[in-house]
Amino acid sequence: MKYKSLLTAIVITIVFCSVGFSQFLAPQNIDEQGRVTFEVKAPDAKYVKLIAKTDPNAMGAAEYDFVKADEGKWTLTTKPCRPGLHYYAFNIDGFECSDPWSQVYFGWARWSSMVEVPDPKVDFYLPKEVPHGDIRFHWYHSKVTGKVRKCLVYTPPGYDTAASKRYPVLYLQHGSGESQLGWMMQGKVNFIMDNLLAAGKAKPMLIVMDNGYATKAGQDDNRGASWGRRNSAFTELVIEDLIPNIDKNFRTLSDRNNRAIAGLSMGAGQAMRTGFGNLDKFASIGAFSGGSRNFDIETSFNGVFKDPAEANKKIDLFWFGMGDLEGGYQGSKDLDKTLTEHGIEHVRYECHGSHEWQVWRRHIHEFAQRLFK
Amino acid sequence: MKYKSLLTAIVITIVFCSVGFSQFLAPQNIDEQGRVTFEVKAPDAKYVKLIAKTDPNAMGAAEYDFVKADEGKWTLTTKPCRPGLHYYAFNIDGFECSDPWSQVYFGWARWSSMVEVPDPKVDFYLPKEVPHGDIRFHWYHSKVTGKVRKCLVYTPPGYDTAASKRYPVLYLQHGSGESQLGWMMQGKVNFIMDNLLAAGKAKPMLIVMDNGYATKAGQDDNRGASWGRRNSAFTELVIEDLIPNIDKNFRTLSDRNNRAIAGLSMGAGQAMRTGFGNLDKFASIGAFSGGSRNFDIETSFNGVFKDPAEANKKIDLFWFGMGDLEGGYQGSKDLDKTLTEHGIEHVRYECHGSHEWQVWRRHIHEFAQRLFK
Repeated sequence: MKYKSLLTAIVITIVFCSVGFSQFLAPQNIDEQGRVTFEVKAPDAKYVKLIAKTDPNAMGAAEYDFVKADEGKWTLTTKPCRPGLHYYAFNIDGFECSDPWSQVYFGWARWSSMVEVPDPKVDFYLPKEVPHGDIRFHWYHSKVTGKVRKCLVYTPPGYDTAASKRYPVLYLQHGSGESQLGWMMQGKVNFIMDNLLAAGKAKPMLIVMDNGYATKAGQDDNRGASWGRRNSAFTELVIEDLIPNIDKNFRTLSDRNNRAIAGLSMGAGQAMRTGFGNLDKFASIGAFSGGSRNFDIETSFNGVFKDPAEANKKIDLFWFGMGDLEGGYQGSKDLDKTLTEHGIEHVRYECHGSHEWQVWRRHIHEFAQRLFK
Repeated sequence: MKYKSLLTAIVITIVFCSVGFSQFLAPQNIDEQGRVTFEVKAPDAKYVKLIAKTDPNAMGAAEYDFVKADEGKWTLTTKPCRPGLHYYAFNIDGFECSDPWSQVYFGWARWSSMVEVPDPKVDFYLPKEVPHGDIRFHWYHSKVTGKVRKCLVYTPPGYDTAASKRYPVLYLQHGSGESQLGWMMQGKVNFIMDNLLAAGKAKPMLIVMDNGYATKAGQDDNRGASWGRRNSAFTELVIEDLIPNIDKNFRTLSDRNNRAIAGLSMGAGQAMRTGFGNLDKFASIGAFSGGSRNFDIETSFNGVFKDPAEANKKIDLFWFGMGDLEGGYQGSKDLDKTLTEHGIEHVRYECHGSHEWQVWRRHIHEFAQRLFK
């Protein structure tokens, strides 16, 4: 018990130190059973609630009531939470907002609170004493959208000193209501890659993370529309603007065998549409927790899979993953079955979890080890 | 009037598009007089207030009461606000928090809301169609603090393609309760530099932005202590860890004439202490809205200014700036007078404004044009 508690404390310390705000933000108080204690100051409130946004079970319940204590303070201790990073919100007299003293992450279409419940069984996404790659915020003007955009680019350790070496590139997309910051902030993709590279388990690669939302220049950006409908120009953006810009500004290997695209949830669908729709540009495709619904061997993705021999020749790696608690779990098994029956090479991966970042951290960790080999 | 309104709309669009969340976040509704309208949904609240954090006059008043409208919505239109970027918070029945639908910035020791009130007179900090530099998130292990830290490094356009060119380096610090993200998110330092470089008004340079808070390994990070007391190991960190790391990983010019340090508020004091205390490492020092209190020609900074001829020989540029509405305004004039009387070369700059980011945007914009020349 003592060991476990110490480990938990270390894990919490590492996770929070790495974000650089340890001086001020109060990491939520988490005990060894994964129960989280919150405290809120709201002297004149009628009620204070916590709402679990990730899924009803991630934090032990869909909703909790805070209890009023002394001096306007309200407190709450949750049931044991699932290890991982969970979105939550406060509800103060009907006003839904984030926890003022938490780290925030862009998700649910705004800056949202999350709680990082340590998983004592894994440390693959924690910052360790290994060489660290950089993440670059890279601004560029997009002809497609007519706007200045910002993408993030992970460069592996040694990129700057290896003056002439060229690298394969993975384009990696976030989910609905999230942003290009997701894979860095929620996903810890840089630490995952740093650790894999230090262990010799992945090939050094660039990882480009752009915003999945893009509408054409002059077109309304559909502020009122549903989240998923604001990405109508995404594939065009990737092909016309993003790839040429990255190949111009970074030391890339620019043939299709050295270019991959992957994404989670909404990004999984985008990766499959963009990747299978442009097999002259991409040879490897990853779909994390999405994109496998209504798959038809004859018609999906313009019939790319109709001729299995041809598909196997063109596609280096088709990798898809799903958590066992996700709605898409059965669909993912069905896709696996269909592809296997038709002799189409692919990798299916499953792990424990819901539609959440702990699953996607595992996905990128597994997928990256298969890429460009 | 029509022209002004159009300009305002363009400015708002550019500012918000550049942050990349224009699809979701609702930029506060700002009219041509700079009045900001807010709307909040809090059906069961007794009261909803807005609190101006930057200073009591930045948003026309220190505090506003929202008025309850239909269906649990509360609304408020402020008096005309000063152009610039202003911190604010909501108070819902005694609960102080950020605006759930605003962009957030690390300030006031947490993720805070800000409103960007366009200044139709200036555009030097807006993203334009010019070549853009990158900002790198650069992780490194600090021996001084015993932790993995993250600093930001602006690399000018062309850095990656100019394979052997070396660059001077400015170390640039944020203020109290802020973080290493401040100069990027609030300050728009990359757009300011991009624009200056495109106009040929500044020398290409690297800008390194680390977190100003640092305590020695094993030492309590003083979570309960005042904001300003959590930076006891900052100078040591810069000298022992940061400079060697940057000089190793980037193509720097590493002599003192090509290294500068500057900062705002708390960071101004840090820049002066670190810079004047290590004149073998730095030749140029900038102090924005701070650091000039209780200056004594004989004793300050270990007597560096005691011998004016020697000081003038050692110091390439000592630049300090202040807003005319700041508490430190008179102190800044006094410092100017003292230095002038003793024949110590320096540059004093003043502009209109309070202790706020619009002033510091002007400061870096002026200071950068003087550096390394």
